[in-house]
Amino acid sequence: MSQTASDLNKKKTSDHNSKDNERWLTINGKRFHYIWLRDNCICPACRHPTSFQKINDISTFSSIPKPLSVVIEEDQVIITWQEEPIHQSIFPIAWLMDYAYDQDAGTNNLHQKLELHKKQEILWDRAWIETNLPRKYDINTDDFDAWTEQILTLGFAILKINNHQDLENLISKIGPRDPFEGERVLFPVKSVPGATDLSETGYALDPHGDYETYKFGPHLLQFLYCVENRATGGESFLIDAFKVAKDFRQNHPSYFNLLVKTPIQFQQIYTDWQYYYRRSRQIIELDRKEQVRAIYFGHSHAYNWDLSFEQMEEYYEAYCAFSCALKDPSYHYCFRLEPGECIAVQNFRVLHGRNAFDANSGVRQLDVSYTRWDYFIARENFKLFQTLYLND
Amino acid sequence: MSQTASDLNKKKTSDHNSKDNERWLTINGKRFHYIWLRDNCICPACRHPTSFQKINDISTFSSIPKPLSVVIEEDQVIITWQEEPIHQSIFPIAWLMDYAYDQDAGTNNLHQKLELHKKQEILWDRAWIETNLPRKYDINTDDFDAWTEQILTLGFAILKINNHQDLENLISKIGPRDPFEGERVLFPVKSVPGATDLSETGYALDPHGDYETYKFGPHLLQFLYCVENRATGGESFLIDAFKVAKDFRQNHPSYFNLLVKTPIQFQQIYTDWQYYYRRSRQIIELDRKEQVRAIYFGHSHAYNWDLSFEQMEEYYEAYCAFSCALKDPSYHYCFRLEPGECIAVQNFRVLHGRNAFDANSGVRQLDVSYTRWDYFIARENFKLFQTLYLND
Repeated sequence: MSQTASDLNKKKTSDHNSKDNERWLTINGKRFHYIWLRDNCICPACRHPTSFQKINDISTFSSIPKPLSVVIEEDQVIITWQEEPIHQSIFPIAWLMDYAYDQDAGTNNLHQKLELHKKQEILWDRAWIETNLPRKYDINTDDFDAWTEQILTLGFAILKINNHQDLENLISKIGPRDPFEGERVLFPVKSVPGATDLSETGYALDPHGDYETYKFGPHLLQFLYCVENRATGGESFLIDAFKVAKDFRQNHPSYFNLLVKTPIQFQQIYTDWQYYYRRSRQIIELDRKEQVRAIYFGHSHAYNWDLSFEQMEEYYEAYCAFSCALKDPSYHYCFRLEPGECIAVQNFRVLHGRNAFDANSGVRQLDVSYTRWDYFIARENFKLFQTLYLND
Repeated sequence: MSQTASDLNKKKTSDHNSKDNERWLTINGKRFHYIWLRDNCICPACRHPTSFQKINDISTFSSIPKPLSVVIEEDQVIITWQEEPIHQSIFPIAWLMDYAYDQDAGTNNLHQKLELHKKQEILWDRAWIETNLPRKYDINTDDFDAWTEQILTLGFAILKINNHQDLENLISKIGPRDPFEGERVLFPVKSVPGATDLSETGYALDPHGDYETYKFGPHLLQFLYCVENRATGGESFLIDAFKVAKDFRQNHPSYFNLLVKTPIQFQQIYTDWQYYYRRSRQIIELDRKEQVRAIYFGHSHAYNWDLSFEQMEEYYEAYCAFSCALKDPSYHYCFRLEPGECIAVQNFRVLHGRNAFDANSGVRQLDVSYTRWDYFIARENFKLFQTLYLND
């Protein structure tokens, strides 16, 4: 049942030379470096028992951690370390298998599931939407998890709500839950004279995401709640920019790479608040697996002011090609938002826009609110992965 | 005084062939592509006059914009475009010189000043601090701009305030100024039983920045206000991580590059709020000029869980070397924070920490608040650069 370190070393000598054995341990065919094991010790002295934060600091060790003995039992590994005073780490084998990095790093293991949320995505265009017409979720009768699930797959959901309080209640289930994080806010978007934002005019709004282009701010889950819509025109549309980017990558690989590599300038002036925001960033952002993880687009804020003379024309070609792709109606889910309907969008995936409307033909008011995408995902992760912490 | 397009073309033929002249215009020795000029037209039909947002969409043009005529006057250039209906752009020459990209792109022009704020930085270590002991700013008598200036140069300031209301007033001058952006909050950090964060224990806190490691959140300007400090131990320290990184880059270039290139996992579980945050990111982030623009460090949240077996040991070497550099006392500005004193830090440049204290020896309470670094910089930019917009 149990096996001592000397048995283990004996068993392992067929696989590794003795020098290797000083550096790692093999469990169920997966190698774990001793330095990694010591760094990841889950005892309450090394990992604080109620905050789960790391206390043990591997960078204070004067040499690479070495085991005095290793005992492998049926469901756990006990390592006694050559330290003064002696320290013991006990790892459940199931825990080690969850966290194995040998051969598994970078593939679809726990960390991908926890963080990248790519597996669930369904990329869509207009044809897909027409075949799979999304239902509208009545938030007073439908299950809360139904629409949040659709946010994870399609990047948006259309909700039916009765009033502002409904929207408040809904957002407060996501966050902030911590009262120290500040109050939630809701602000009206309608046509006003002397508008300080194009949204407050009757102009069409081209496909865009809010704020994330020019602010160093959080990713947003955005809510657009229709209070009144009596204007002529002003239809809403949504675009899955991940789908557009995927096709664009295939059709125009060199343009795609240019947009991934080249930062341009996004800016916004708020004369009322006396803020002048400026941020250089790339329009297309990839994750560490080279998959599209965010699109930052908003033509009315975009300037390529810091490109060299030699880059300028090629960048315009790439930018215009991508902008045209985003405006291609075959990617648009276009509809008229009715009072009581609310669009929820993953702001850095699904871009939104509207057709122009005649501000004299009637009132069109959307009330807009945001919560952090972080809260949304952290809540999902907690539901799925709390057992990694709260049961041990 | 004025010059027609044909004069201009004649004048220019010595510099460029006629094909080139169709694509750009040279003003005071700086070339401007016609597509760039058309995209940047500042007339009220192309750029909304009160929001300054772009309306004209260059990606809708069926061909590259061409001038019908160009007239260069003493202080402005008038371009009439081959469009139906005809469109005219008038650029002040001073505006063009501010925005010139020919030869100037990527060097220290307007955009660098507006965005990177690197010129003002003074990197410091303990020896520098001992020679240039920072003053403490009394926010009721000292000029507001004095301490904000020090934030831009040193990344921190120590303020004297009387009470919470003082701190509230001070932060509200920075932001949010827009009431729709939500309320500001202040929360107490002191030792409590069953702590869900190491800060709520008596443990030492190693050098760290708050939140930006594991959240997809905004950059922060952080305030640590000392309400009470009767505990034995618990001295505060600040570290200019940009200075540490600069020296580290020189002393350990390959480790530096590894930390720039390799994302690791940062995480935090909030059992109370049922959030599980996770973010993979690099410890050292460079700006588009390859200068250090942010350091994300917090050992108690850091795990290298998704590296390959082959990368693991080298990453540990680099990580431990950087961690040791951050803990090197020759980089530490160490002091005892007294009641009524408040540390303001640029969270992604100046790391903070504390020595361990004996929670039974007396109360130690810091009240912590944050505002977005964005507000701080957008406010500075507005002061400096509003004339680019509000005078034209």
